[in-house]
Amino acid sequence: MLIIGENISVTASVIGNAVKDRNEKPIVNLAKAQAQAGANYIDVNIGPATKKGEELMQWIVKSIQDEVDLPLALDTKNISAIEKGLEVHKGKAMINSVTGDQDKLDMLMPLAKKFDAKIVGISLTDKGIPPDIDSRLEIAMTIVSSAMEHGVPMEDLYLDPIILPVAVLQEQVYNCIQALKVFKQLQELMGLDSQPMTTVGLSNVSQSSPDELKSLLNRTMLMVLLSNGLDSAIMNPLDKDLMAAVRTFDIVNNRILYAHSYLD
Amino acid sequence: MLIIGENISVTASVIGNAVKDRNEKPIVNLAKAQAQAGANYIDVNIGPATKKGEELMQWIVKSIQDEVDLPLALDTKNISAIEKGLEVHKGKAMINSVTGDQDKLDMLMPLAKKFDAKIVGISLTDKGIPPDIDSRLEIAMTIVSSAMEHGVPMEDLYLDPIILPVAVLQEQVYNCIQALKVFKQLQELMGLDSQPMTTVGLSNVSQSSPDELKSLLNRTMLMVLLSNGLDSAIMNPLDKDLMAAVRTFDIVNNRILYAHSYLD
Repeated sequence: MLIIGENISVTASVIGNAVKDRNEKPIVNLAKAQAQAGANYIDVNIGPATKKGEELMQWIVKSIQDEVDLPLALDTKNISAIEKGLEVHKGKAMINSVTGDQDKLDMLMPLAKKFDAKIVGISLTDKGIPPDIDSRLEIAMTIVSSAMEHGVPMEDLYLDPIILPVAVLQEQVYNCIQALKVFKQLQELMGLDSQPMTTVGLSNVSQSSPDELKSLLNRTMLMVLLSNGLDSAIMNPLDKDLMAAVRTFDIVNNRILYAHSYLD
Repeated sequence: MLIIGENISVTASVIGNAVKDRNEKPIVNLAKAQAQAGANYIDVNIGPATKKGEELMQWIVKSIQDEVDLPLALDTKNISAIEKGLEVHKGKAMINSVTGDQDKLDMLMPLAKKFDAKIVGISLTDKGIPPDIDSRLEIAMTIVSSAMEHGVPMEDLYLDPIILPVAVLQEQVYNCIQALKVFKQLQELMGLDSQPMTTVGLSNVSQSSPDELKSLLNRTMLMVLLSNGLDSAIMNPLDKDLMAAVRTFDIVNNRILYAHSYLD
């Protein structure tokens, strides 16, 4: 699976402060730690970034990529900041994320095409959380159609069936699992040449739950989703129990060779 | 899911000694502990029991059911001991297990029918471990046919796709997962009125692995199998991490209502 490290986010105060002070050290250190723990991408969430977002994204992309040899997932609502970040990004970037709103799709899909970037499409619109599985599917189909229209290949499109906190909207967590199963049939349903990828923002499931339950909820949800074909997750690679579960999943599915030391 | 507690087995020295001395206390205590931990059935494995197996099985069934209000899974190769155990068992017993060999099926299916017991059918024959998924399916179909012939309803038949140790036969673990998926389609494949149940001997997956990996392997395998529709497992209900995973699986699948205290 493709592991997108979630830890660099301005919502964390240490990162928020580092961003404000343009202090690259805590950011680079967190990127290095995630890389070492097994992340394949590093998510960089700079928040709404309405002021100086372009300069900020370029600074953070360059700061991390000067020190860490991984591609980044650029995460902000500021589309112009995404574009500026892509301009200085080395390797195959990821755009995180685009909703199923036509105006957003029309702005971000061309960027994914232009910069040969991966892009996350979440089954959500400005109208809010889709009430059922069919509405998630409908949004996913809109996203797939837009990707095709703009020449973004299916292997670069990561559909997100959207995880909500189980403590707040338990039924929506079940809907997410069911929606993933349906998304995995999109190639057949839409007659596509290849299957679009899938991803989730894993930690959402345990938001608002007590700290002692978070890791258990995250890794159980991940095991269920991986068993249903999930290709990727935005998650915390520094959670050792979570990473051990991922590795054990690969062991029982015969994807990596078993050795008594497989966790080392 | 139906949890069958695996802990009362003569292969454990404390139980082996208790059986030899006809000392019911350690056996009853272990049954009580499993009941309290959430087991729905208590497996009673008395080994080959070639000598005095009938008397032993009756003694152990009565000893446990005098103190614990749960049905038992009777586990021995001694078929006459199974029959004698069923004669004194209260409630709906389980016969654990029958292989796909015609002579075994012809002896044990009639017992399941006569005593209205559940029965586990494992996709294994005297010829050894089936080399691929198709041979597991073929054996499962033989077991299903025998159940139908003897009037054992599908909801009482638990097909076991057979877990082998990942440390020894990694590919066979993957085959087990795939076989389960196929077993879950048996109703359709065989045109049955209802779907047979499924179970596994979970701890087999971690046999021969280091102790520190066992629980992780067991619970990861269980999450994968439950995600693919597994109905039951013979497992260790005293493994708190395993039981927490089962409960969390039910939470994310909206089967039990979430509360911050759902593990208590």
